[in-house]
Amino acid sequence: MPITTPLTELLGIRHPILSAPMDTIAGCRLTRAVSEAGGFGILGGGYGDRARLQAEAAELKGFAPFGIGFITWSLAKQPDLLDIALDASPQVVMLSFGDPAPFAPQIKASGARLMCQVQSEDMAKQALDAGAEILIAQGTEAGGHGASRTTVDIVPAIVDLVAGRVPVVAAGGIADGRGLAAMMMLGASGVLVGTRFYASVEANAAADAKERIRTADANDTVRGVVPDWSRKLFWPAPFTARTLVNGFIKSWTGREIELMQRADDVAKEYAAAKMAGDFEIAAVFAGEAVGLIHDIPPAAEIVVRIATEAEQLLAGRRNSIASLA
Amino acid sequence: MPITTPLTELLGIRHPILSAPMDTIAGCRLTRAVSEAGGFGILGGGYGDRARLQAEAAELKGFAPFGIGFITWSLAKQPDLLDIALDASPQVVMLSFGDPAPFAPQIKASGARLMCQVQSEDMAKQALDAGAEILIAQGTEAGGHGASRTTVDIVPAIVDLVAGRVPVVAAGGIADGRGLAAMMMLGASGVLVGTRFYASVEANAAADAKERIRTADANDTVRGVVPDWSRKLFWPAPFTARTLVNGFIKSWTGREIELMQRADDVAKEYAAAKMAGDFEIAAVFAGEAVGLIHDIPPAAEIVVRIATEAEQLLAGRRNSIASLA
Ligand SMILES: Cc1cc2nc3c(=O)[nH]c(=O)nc-3n(C[C@H](O)[C@H](O)[C@H](O)COP(=O)(O)O)c2cc1C
Ligand SMILES: Cc1cc2nc3c(=O)[nH]c(=O)nc-3n(C[C@H](O)[C@H](O)[C@H](O)COP(=O)(O)O)c2cc1C
Repeated sequence: MPITTPLTELLGIRHPILSAPMDTIAGCRLTRAVSEAGGFGILGGGYGDRARLQAEAAELKGFAPFGIGFITWSLAKQPDLLDIALDASPQVVMLSFGDPAPFAPQIKASGARLMCQVQSEDMAKQALDAGAEILIAQGTEAGGHGASRTTVDIVPAIVDLVAGRVPVVAAGGIADGRGLAAMMMLGASGVLVGTRFYASVEANAAADAKERIRTADANDTVRGVVPDWSRKLFWPAPFTARTLVNGFIKSWTGREIELMQRADDVAKEYAAAKMAGDFEIAAVFAGEAVGLIHDIPPAAEIVVRIATEAEQLLAGRRNSIASLA
Repeated sequence: MPITTPLTELLGIRHPILSAPMDTIAGCRLTRAVSEAGGFGILGGGYGDRARLQAEAAELKGFAPFGIGFITWSLAKQPDLLDIALDASPQVVMLSFGDPAPFAPQIKASGARLMCQVQSEDMAKQALDAGAEILIAQGTEAGGHGASRTTVDIVPAIVDLVAGRVPVVAAGGIADGRGLAAMMMLGASGVLVGTRFYASVEANAAADAKERIRTADANDTVRGVVPDWSRKLFWPAPFTARTLVNGFIKSWTGREIELMQRADDVAKEYAAAKMAGDFEIAAVFAGEAVGLIHDIPPAAEIVVRIATEAEQLLAGRRNSIASLA
């Protein structure tokens, strides 16, 4: 039996599984595949590449359901990107990493739900004050940008703070049905999954990057500033990026001040490596969940696997809790 | 209905809830209270205070069930403390932070079960090779010593590695029934709980320390070396200690080399503060679960609360999953 939660009811979806708006990696193909499988796909708004957003959003216009996610502080530099997004009539606009208040009225007036990803109680309060209708509590395990509190800590903390007013979605380190079932026990209404969908057929990423995620283990990721500063991207505190470790990150870790000083040269080297698909220099953004990822299936299969395993666990049918009295 | 798992069956206990061997804080009073409530109490072996161990173990002789926990690298310096422990006939000897192999034969020959706390796959393999009959997978959320992997990451990783050979217990950040239920979904057979039991009537600790745990929130803990180096305790890598932040830790963080150089003087100041119960200098060892702790009840009440809440969640009777189809 499918899992019904306040989130599945609010969004009208079959499974409480959302795919994360991973910048350029979560394109319209992944978004569509996740939603068609009964989850909820979210297009990555990225860092403000207007042409790309226009093209991807146009592909999704008329499709349902789906969301579009923005990096809030980046959107604040090009606020009219929101018009492009809303023109595609997403059911949800997701905002992360910054104050959502300036964008909330326009989003809500469009009929889209405002969903905010938060990393602390203060950010959750700010999002609720802005009128967020869904909160995502993100733990430090997450791939990509985030902060320091862990999933086991931040999820019940936000659930308690919200006290039932809006559904809470858990993010960070979730890649299988055990994770979804565990997060539901902590009071979440669903999960937002990034890294697991990166290693899917439909993710818009180099085959070598997906392969690195498939073969990495959970000791192979690190959170830091090197991948950002190497692109001259200076994120506001407290956000850092979790990526796979590579030779480049190892060589610069502990020398971040020097990296900042030599940012122009390093940025050229990094950009060239990224273009060439050299992942010993360019970073693969991925979370601790890499330890649970051993294949690169179609996204629909990931949705169904997570949902089915969680359903069985919650129904007490799996071995690990088969002996529940 | 009580939760039955391979762990409850192996130990013959009613609830899959173990209290952690928190050095001097988990004395015979806490150990006894937890076991009498249907959990499993573990006496803290501490750092080799022979007289204390003798007195505490003597109090527990004849009582059942209970365990005694040692810091393995510390025990290696005074291996005959194990004789004192085994003389009290504990059902379990728990070893953490070091290679259990040298002690495994004597423990198993005594009839006690060997339980090992691990922080990585490699440590888990080492413990299994030594004949561990129960593994504890500890996440970085934990109070006291630990490493960097998070609970949501390390628990399924160890469950997968163990593949059903021995029960896996989850530790780090668990303070309520939501946490127990979540860990069971990840494949754990129970939980080891430290910080929550520190803030209990029976914990052998200063009232002010318990009060600080009660009032702290999850942003108030930090993992580092300052509290150890200030006692001239130099733990082997990769272990650091999570404590509440205080003025002393703030002042030394980032100046650890200087702290090491001035260790003799600092150690005097620290010891005096500890004696005086000045917790702006002496550290209160506690984990991220402080955010979930708001009272200082009897330990038995903690056991029953965690068990009851988890039972209800797993039975699908709680609001948060009341709508499970
Ligand atoms: C490759 C990658 C790129 C990401 N980019 C974004 C982004 O542009 N905006 C955003 O809100 N979150 C981004 N995230 C974070 C996700 O929203 C989410 O919190 C995270 O993927 C969840 O943890 P998981 O990776 O362990 O599933 C990204 C994550 C990954 C792995
Ligand atoms: C005050 C305190 C002292 C601790 N001392 C020990 C110890 O001496 N030996 C040990 O194996 N673990 C020790 N731990 C760690 C526990 O075994 C356990 O992993 C941890 O408490 C679980 O996380 P939690 O604190 O979030 O419940 C200690 C924990 C605390 C809070």
